[in-house]
Amino acid sequence: MSVPPSTDRVRLRRLHQRGVYDPASIHQILDTMPVCNVGYVSDGQPYVTPTLQWREGDQVYWHGSSASRMLRAAEGADVCMTVSIIDGFVMARSGLHHSINYRSAMLLGKARKITDPEEKEARMRAMMDGMFPGRWDSLRPATSQELKATTVLSMPIDEASAKVRTGQPSDDEEDYALPIWTGVIPVRMEVQQPEPDPRNFNNVAVPDHIANFRLG
Amino acid sequence: MSVPPSTDRVRLRRLHQRGVYDPASIHQILDTMPVCNVGYVSDGQPYVTPTLQWREGDQVYWHGSSASRMLRAAEGADVCMTVSIIDGFVMARSGLHHSINYRSAMLLGKARKITDPEEKEARMRAMMDGMFPGRWDSLRPATSQELKATTVLSMPIDEASAKVRTGQPSDDEEDYALPIWTGVIPVRMEVQQPEPDPRNFNNVAVPDHIANFRLG
Repeated sequence: MSVPPSTDRVRLRRLHQRGVYDPASIHQILDTMPVCNVGYVSDGQPYVTPTLQWREGDQVYWHGSSASRMLRAAEGADVCMTVSIIDGFVMARSGLHHSINYRSAMLLGKARKITDPEEKEARMRAMMDGMFPGRWDSLRPATSQELKATTVLSMPIDEASAKVRTGQPSDDEEDYALPIWTGVIPVRMEVQQPEPDPRNFNNVAVPDHIANFRLG
Repeated sequence: MSVPPSTDRVRLRRLHQRGVYDPASIHQILDTMPVCNVGYVSDGQPYVTPTLQWREGDQVYWHGSSASRMLRAAEGADVCMTVSIIDGFVMARSGLHHSINYRSAMLLGKARKITDPEEKEARMRAMMDGMFPGRWDSLRPATSQELKATTVLSMPIDEASAKVRTGQPSDDEEDYALPIWTGVIPVRMEVQQPEPDPRNFNNVAVPDHIANFRLG
């Protein structure tokens, strides 16, 4: 049985068959793509800022400089976080049926600031090690000043929806008689060969968490 | 001489050396990445919706179903469009100096709806042929009903900023003595082998606009 939307604000009205509301599907999209876009309002004007997110259980986190305009405006305020993975361009027999294959998640909620320095450090370790297992302990430890200069925000994943499109175009039945090339052009965010800092020591090997890094 | 920000709302406050305001730099980012995120406000709540954008001169456009909640809420309203290209993960010697290489643009403005059907069709042709040169004329022509069912919005690119980070980490000078692997892990949105629709005719060749499609 499918999970219903938690609120009307996240219910898909158009193409509702593409909508999913179960936490596992939403978590999977968040876990696949760390890049997100956070929307917030300042003086009535919406702003959208790209940043990285990470998930722990049913909470999502993002962070940055304590001086960040986005983080200062988002703290305690209503925000929207959107994560989208573009999987391909869908080429149809008419302009209207051209589409995109994608997996996207939209989360609404109030952003809460993490104030306890130990909790803050634990969250940042989780972010780093979630993407690059073991890296946190390989680094010069964070200073209390650096922790102070960093803001970590969190939001519960309880008002959210995901939207997914896959597969070939859905053309009007009579258009299938037309001799037009149609199909999907898949795209993927791919990791390239790491570029070592020229100031690295010669005898420092590429760690597994760099060599094995994948996105999605 | 560098171009100053057009308003204080788009002026970069933090890391201002990463900010650029000249139209050519902003246009280049828009022309490189069709995926954007549009932020708008509805009942005080910000929403962020991923969609495709295209540029013609000093105007940016986006479109979708006339029933789209995003397009209906954005029409005539203050919106924010953000385009971001992720170029790499910057791995430093301390957690704080980890970063992302990216090129992003943020545009603020009021969205205007295109009502003239001929102008609407011209814009959609420009979108399609901008990504896939010559495709529009190869398709079954758009019907007046399809044009009616499609909303095209536009916004002048006059209140905008771009932000760019490139290169290796900038660590604290004393941390360069630490034997930690640092560098950049480049990432890139890559086009994969096209997947033809099984319902294509056997004798329809892959057109150049499909075979030559690149992102960025």
